[in-house]
Amino acid sequence: MHTTLLTALGLSLAATAAAQHTDYPIQAVSFTKVKLTDSFWLPRLKINTDVTIPASFARCESTNRVKNFEMAAARQGKFATTFPFDDTDIYKTIEGASYSLSVYPDKKLETYVDELIAKVAAAQEPDGYLYTARTIDPAHPHPWAGKERWKKERELSHELYNSGHLYEAAVAHYEATGKKNLLNIALKNADLVCSVFGPGKRSVAPGHEIVEMGLVKLYRATGQLKYLTTAKFFLDARGHYSGYDPKSPDTWKNGSYWQDHKPVVAQTEAEGHAVRAEYLYSAMADVAALTGDKPLLAAVDSIWQNMVAKKFYVTGGTGAVPGGERFGANYELPNTTAYNETCASVADVFWNQRMFQLHGDAKYVDVMEKVLYNGLISGVGLDGKSFFYSNAMQIKNSLGFAQTEPARAGWFECSCCPTNMARLMPALPGYIYAQNGQNVYVNLFVSGKADLLVNKQRVQLTQQNNYPWDGGLKFTVNPASAASFNLLLRIPGWARNEAMPSNLYTFATPSTQAVTLKVNGKTTPYTMRNGYAVVARKWQKNDVVEMTLPMEVRQVVANPLIKDDLGKVALQRGPVMFCAEWQDNDGKTSNLLVPTATAFTATYKPNTLNGIMELTAKVPTVEVDATANSIQTVSKTMTAIPYYAWANRGKGEMTVWFPQRVLDVDIISQPMAEAVTAK
Amino acid sequence: MHTTLLTALGLSLAATAAAQHTDYPIQAVSFTKVKLTDSFWLPRLKINTDVTIPASFARCESTNRVKNFEMAAARQGKFATTFPFDDTDIYKTIEGASYSLSVYPDKKLETYVDELIAKVAAAQEPDGYLYTARTIDPAHPHPWAGKERWKKERELSHELYNSGHLYEAAVAHYEATGKKNLLNIALKNADLVCSVFGPGKRSVAPGHEIVEMGLVKLYRATGQLKYLTTAKFFLDARGHYSGYDPKSPDTWKNGSYWQDHKPVVAQTEAEGHAVRAEYLYSAMADVAALTGDKPLLAAVDSIWQNMVAKKFYVTGGTGAVPGGERFGANYELPNTTAYNETCASVADVFWNQRMFQLHGDAKYVDVMEKVLYNGLISGVGLDGKSFFYSNAMQIKNSLGFAQTEPARAGWFECSCCPTNMARLMPALPGYIYAQNGQNVYVNLFVSGKADLLVNKQRVQLTQQNNYPWDGGLKFTVNPASAASFNLLLRIPGWARNEAMPSNLYTFATPSTQAVTLKVNGKTTPYTMRNGYAVVARKWQKNDVVEMTLPMEVRQVVANPLIKDDLGKVALQRGPVMFCAEWQDNDGKTSNLLVPTATAFTATYKPNTLNGIMELTAKVPTVEVDATANSIQTVSKTMTAIPYYAWANRGKGEMTVWFPQRVLDVDIISQPMAEAVTAK
Repeated sequence: MHTTLLTALGLSLAATAAAQHTDYPIQAVSFTKVKLTDSFWLPRLKINTDVTIPASFARCESTNRVKNFEMAAARQGKFATTFPFDDTDIYKTIEGASYSLSVYPDKKLETYVDELIAKVAAAQEPDGYLYTARTIDPAHPHPWAGKERWKKERELSHELYNSGHLYEAAVAHYEATGKKNLLNIALKNADLVCSVFGPGKRSVAPGHEIVEMGLVKLYRATGQLKYLTTAKFFLDARGHYSGYDPKSPDTWKNGSYWQDHKPVVAQTEAEGHAVRAEYLYSAMADVAALTGDKPLLAAVDSIWQNMVAKKFYVTGGTGAVPGGERFGANYELPNTTAYNETCASVADVFWNQRMFQLHGDAKYVDVMEKVLYNGLISGVGLDGKSFFYSNAMQIKNSLGFAQTEPARAGWFECSCCPTNMARLMPALPGYIYAQNGQNVYVNLFVSGKADLLVNKQRVQLTQQNNYPWDGGLKFTVNPASAASFNLLLRIPGWARNEAMPSNLYTFATPSTQAVTLKVNGKTTPYTMRNGYAVVARKWQKNDVVEMTLPMEVRQVVANPLIKDDLGKVALQRGPVMFCAEWQDNDGKTSNLLVPTATAFTATYKPNTLNGIMELTAKVPTVEVDATANSIQTVSKTMTAIPYYAWANRGKGEMTVWFPQRVLDVDIISQPMAEAVTAK
Repeated sequence: MHTTLLTALGLSLAATAAAQHTDYPIQAVSFTKVKLTDSFWLPRLKINTDVTIPASFARCESTNRVKNFEMAAARQGKFATTFPFDDTDIYKTIEGASYSLSVYPDKKLETYVDELIAKVAAAQEPDGYLYTARTIDPAHPHPWAGKERWKKERELSHELYNSGHLYEAAVAHYEATGKKNLLNIALKNADLVCSVFGPGKRSVAPGHEIVEMGLVKLYRATGQLKYLTTAKFFLDARGHYSGYDPKSPDTWKNGSYWQDHKPVVAQTEAEGHAVRAEYLYSAMADVAALTGDKPLLAAVDSIWQNMVAKKFYVTGGTGAVPGGERFGANYELPNTTAYNETCASVADVFWNQRMFQLHGDAKYVDVMEKVLYNGLISGVGLDGKSFFYSNAMQIKNSLGFAQTEPARAGWFECSCCPTNMARLMPALPGYIYAQNGQNVYVNLFVSGKADLLVNKQRVQLTQQNNYPWDGGLKFTVNPASAASFNLLLRIPGWARNEAMPSNLYTFATPSTQAVTLKVNGKTTPYTMRNGYAVVARKWQKNDVVEMTLPMEVRQVVANPLIKDDLGKVALQRGPVMFCAEWQDNDGKTSNLLVPTATAFTATYKPNTLNGIMELTAKVPTVEVDATANSIQTVSKTMTAIPYYAWANRGKGEMTVWFPQRVLDVDIISQPMAEAVTAK
């Protein structure tokens, strides 16, 4: 199939010769093979199952998203929600429910999902077209959808975006349950898409990418080449539209908002709408892996490098600019207006997992871990049903309206983020382990059991730890019988004094402790390869590997080209970034200073915010008495909590980046909020 | 001629019937009739004559501006400067020199000017075209000029801008010297322009307005209707170009940068490049006055109202936005990035004089006076040869590069501002008095003598005062024989507790003193009309009118929709706005607070900055000790100087708007300047 595939994709002979493999060299160990016992993640997966998914379905019902499908089935009514892509919230929640069902079988939920799938099937047109906004009443299509199918796909309609999420959900549902009811709907739709789009047929750069990733999943699930061919066709369609103005600084006008300003192989920077971008980059990695397309690989490598070196918040957020929900310029990472869409963090996990599978380098997992423990889970409240669409970096009372969301909401008119969270969270077990023949990668430190097959022999791998709070990690390797293979344990960048792969952030106070590694109680030499400690041995039943990661509180400084962070530090312990929140600091955090010499104490608080590590230190703070026009610095104990846990106790100030000293002040004479109401 | 004129201009019968006059109802008393003795302005006019004009001519020589004319005359060489509109610096300096020659005859200067005019004449093509960038070598035109005449006029070439400045200079030179050598060049060029542009001929909205004002001046000087007709044609040409994108937020793309986004009669707000805009609005007033065109009048009234109510700095500066040197949105008047081009202040004087001549309301002169005593003369250093292109509102050391020019320069590559100053300053005597039949307006309080003709009888009007420092004003009216007429003395808005005509700024600490008026030593009742005290009497030889204006230091507050000024005050005394400068305040001004109760002492300092009123007061200041991370408020004496006098003693902090209290602070941990050099 290899040659056929490459020929079908129109690759040159040279490219064919260069292609060394036909898929990712490294394969993730499926979520179906991993069972968690982890005290950090398991409760999160459980609340996702118990609260988030039911709440999402309930909201899909109450906000008429389900009704849209019912009306489409009846071919009558009036599209009852705002956006034509509201269909996807149902697909995404089904996807989350599917992962969940494979771990926690639940007959009632399964029945409900099957009923929903039946409604989706009924809404599908005979030729496979599935898009309720048009099907309900094709004579009066939804304003975003236009009169003709596919005509507004580039800018508005999201017809292929709906298809993409359908495919993602269908494959997850099929893998988790073995049922084909949703898969068949997806394939029927994909067959239509493949018949409409392609060389000599219709062409478009899909306005909101995801159909490319979805088609690749269908290709993997079915082996049908046309799905991969069409995915690649959609990638290649980018950068050829003549209607843009390349000189316009407006990202909509120049096409970069949609990543349509250049052919994908010519793109070198993370640009435009962050979620669309990272879905595209994920698909580029997929197609590069499946075709060995070197230019595509070079492009996605370059884009990744640009993102981590210049467009990445210290909390793992991406997409700095609210207008267009997009990447800013290099080093444009302001705090008060940070956008950081939760969906972009979801997309970033997808993308970094793929980059790791391509290259086998721990740096991709380092980035993914930063996202997972910080900017991703900050998007959902501890109650499992309140969400951030954007993830703030600073809340300051006197800044008033200049800020991003200071409190979580239950749902959004465009509710992509809650449902994206619903589908990512239960898929987490699939991100922990990976394998390339004899090389078994341990990427995330999550307690639980995994069933692996190494050299066709079963190996059970158990993790026991209290990560991310403790640095002591225990791995028990239990082969069916003695077996030789390599265990690759990721030694996180932060444990090697590398705050980010490309020094966008560095440690001002590096760790002086070394990572230690023991096998069966004995310190063992190991080689380092691409960020992994490689333990090569003939494994016996119940071999125990123990690794200790240094867990000091460390101060992080940003590249000085990030203007907003100049002269400031952030606080990190293990993979967790910390913030100060008003509730723990006498109502105010924007007045806290963290000089370099500040010594923090970390204390585990089991009853605070579902159990967190809390940092405290004596620091200087700036105290203003407005009535007396008096101002002074006083020493006070500051408290910091994990960034992900903020905004669970009401609305108030929050700070991630702390000034190291007071060199000067800008005087705030009146709160900005007063300006809005004034006059 | 009235009917002929209106018909020629294509006005309807209704418009004709509505037209009540054929020119401004109020005429300014020419600068040739006014002789200054004023201790504030006369030294400024003198240094303009002695230093600014010679320095401008010298720089026109040394920067090859004169050489361009010589090469054009020879029809060979290579255009030797950057911009094709560099020709105008010569015209503008000739204009300034002409006003100056009428006051201070100077044979050597007159000869030099005549020689320059001969060079200009030699550079003119046989058909009247005058534009050195093309004439030097038409086969290889300057990149801005394009291959064909007039083709790039809308966006780049400024061919008509050059013509406009030529006309302005020619009429000034003719009026001041009686010579026609420059006027003839201008008329030859204008005849070409009128033959090329017009109904059924070529049409364009001139890219940088001024040709319209210039043509009106030629019409007044010659009575030839075609110049007025063509001026109106150019006004009417605006807003009809189909190449713009009305939806674009980019002012270049939507045409508002050039005021070309709408027909002039449909424009209601001050928009786009401020200098171009205010030249256009001046021409709109001219043409409205000369034709009685009501819609045109309504448009320019509306635009003026928008500017003074929403787009005007407290110092009289206009054009807030550096990118495009343009007006911002309503209330977009930031301090740290204020642009305030000096040329825009020049244009504002032109425009407000015309608005006054149309309506006879003192509010226009109030605005003009604010510009004259503040944001205009801040543009030239006390040495007469150092200039600001932009006029800052705040210099803060720790803001680094985020600011506008902190120091004056001798000349600029685009050196419009110095030469605009050179031509406005000596024209000042023409802005002091105006007349409408029996109504004699005293607009500015400038010591000197004016020779008027009222009811065909000579009246000498003398002003003696120490304005703007003292509020005591003395006017001696000396008719050839007893004569009845109205003396209209402007009572400035600020003297009536009106900081700006439309309350964009208001006094937080209003004056409690009343304006007093005496005739021959006796308090005299007077009626108020449109901001003027009307003194109607039969005037005898040496009648003396004395008026006293309240001169307390007053705190000004801004409309709360101006975000940057929220909770802050500015300081005003008489028409003069004050600022604090680093040199008088221990090197720092951004730390000064001015609570409402602050009592200022005004002291005249004859040896400081050529003689200024200085304000001092005890105020709280915020003192930071960066090494100790300590910060406190201490009481200190602050000193403020007139805003116009800043930046004559080196580079450092300057503040116009002072916080009233410290409600909160933003901590500056590292100066922005370090960010630029870092990495």
